Amino acid sequence: MRKSTVSLSVACLTFATVSSVVLSGQPAANDGPRYENGTHLVRPDDYREWTFLSSGLAMAYNEDQPAGASTRPQLFQNVFVNPSSHRAFMETGRWPDGTTFVLEFRRAATDAEISRTGRFQTDRVMLEAEVKDARFPDGWAFFNFGQDDALAEVAEPLAGAQVARCIECHTEHTAVERTFVQFYPTLLEVARQKGTLKPGF
Amino acid sequence: MRKSTVSLSVACLTFATVSSVVLSGQPAANDGPRYENGTHLVRPDDYREWTFLSSGLAMAYNEDQPAGASTRPQLFQNVFVNPSSHRAFMETGRWPDGTTFVLEFRRAATDAEISRTGRFQTDRVMLEAEVKDARFPDGWAFFNFGQDDALAEVAEPLAGAQVARCIECHTEHTAVERTFVQFYPTLLEVARQKGTLKPGF
Repeated sequence: MRKSTVSLSVACLTFATVSSVVLSGQPAANDGPRYENGTHLVRPDDYREWTFLSSGLAMAYNEDQPAGASTRPQLFQNVFVNPSSHRAFMETGRWPDGTTFVLEFRRAATDAEISRTGRFQTDRVMLEAEVKDARFPDGWAFFNFGQDDALAEVAEPLAGAQVARCIECHTEHTAVERTFVQFYPTLLEVARQKGTLKPGF
Repeated sequence: MRKSTVSLSVACLTFATVSSVVLSGQPAANDGPRYENGTHLVRPDDYREWTFLSSGLAMAYNEDQPAGASTRPQLFQNVFVNPSSHRAFMETGRWPDGTTFVLEFRRAATDAEISRTGRFQTDRVMLEAEVKDARFPDGWAFFNFGQDDALAEVAEPLAGAQVARCIECHTEHTAVERTFVQFYPTLLEVARQKGTLKPGF
């Protein structure tokens, strides 16, 4: 009898620890990347419940493109990050291993009855991800789940010529590590305070 | 000894229930509205960790405004909802009591080094909220926390002439209850499936 009581107490302690996390409103950190075959990223279908970082309109990848010259359809671009990594960043100004960014592109519509001039988001067009993980040679990896009409459930890390441009741009033009914190206003201030901004930002 | 073992078991059952919520990745539903004096809404400072619904650019309030005629500065408008109400909506297509929307306006900047043509979000300009709660005569209430340089910590529900336009527009032009689900693409499909869209949507 004594023994089972002790084991119950230990179990309670564990549950109490877990529940204190719940009561503080923070979900457990089970939101990191899931892989198949070690490095193929499983599409995180709950990313819309992750932490939103920002949204842009018609943010081109081509830095050489002059203003107004875009011929691409104008898309909204929403960025989400897994909640536990977001909390870590807000405390430290750095991204922990396992940080997963999801980049979602959506069509921009206009001329709604209630707002003739504004632009709002409609269908998802494509989905991409960026992950910080020591399992990758570079420490970061990029993934493309493709177009929305045929979204992949699992994506292998982009490699070779596919990813060279990603790495170059995410190295030379990003404010913190490999991430565009200069476009995430709530993070930019934290990075400034923590001294993790790269020189020039 | 028997008595304490039983009470420990009950405690463990409680913790087990709570922990199962954690393990499913859902924080406890302690994210509803907090009031002072019964109806004055306390500004929810963690709303950036809530569920993001959508972002629009230059979405005017004035339905009569012809396309292109806006003289207001173009602002991004981000909409967040408390996570437990979002989960309820995804299951039912309806908003439970305590649903809290936060509407955040941010400046739109352009001509970033990496994207000359695109527009991205910078400083917050103002903050508003809409709450569904049976404590209000109308079942819903609207709040304005004001401009970002002097954001109120607590806001009383808008009343009289201040709110007449809000109520009219949120009644006549919204797709589900008093909310613009037509602009929240992930919710629109759920409402369609659950049959909670108003006629015409």
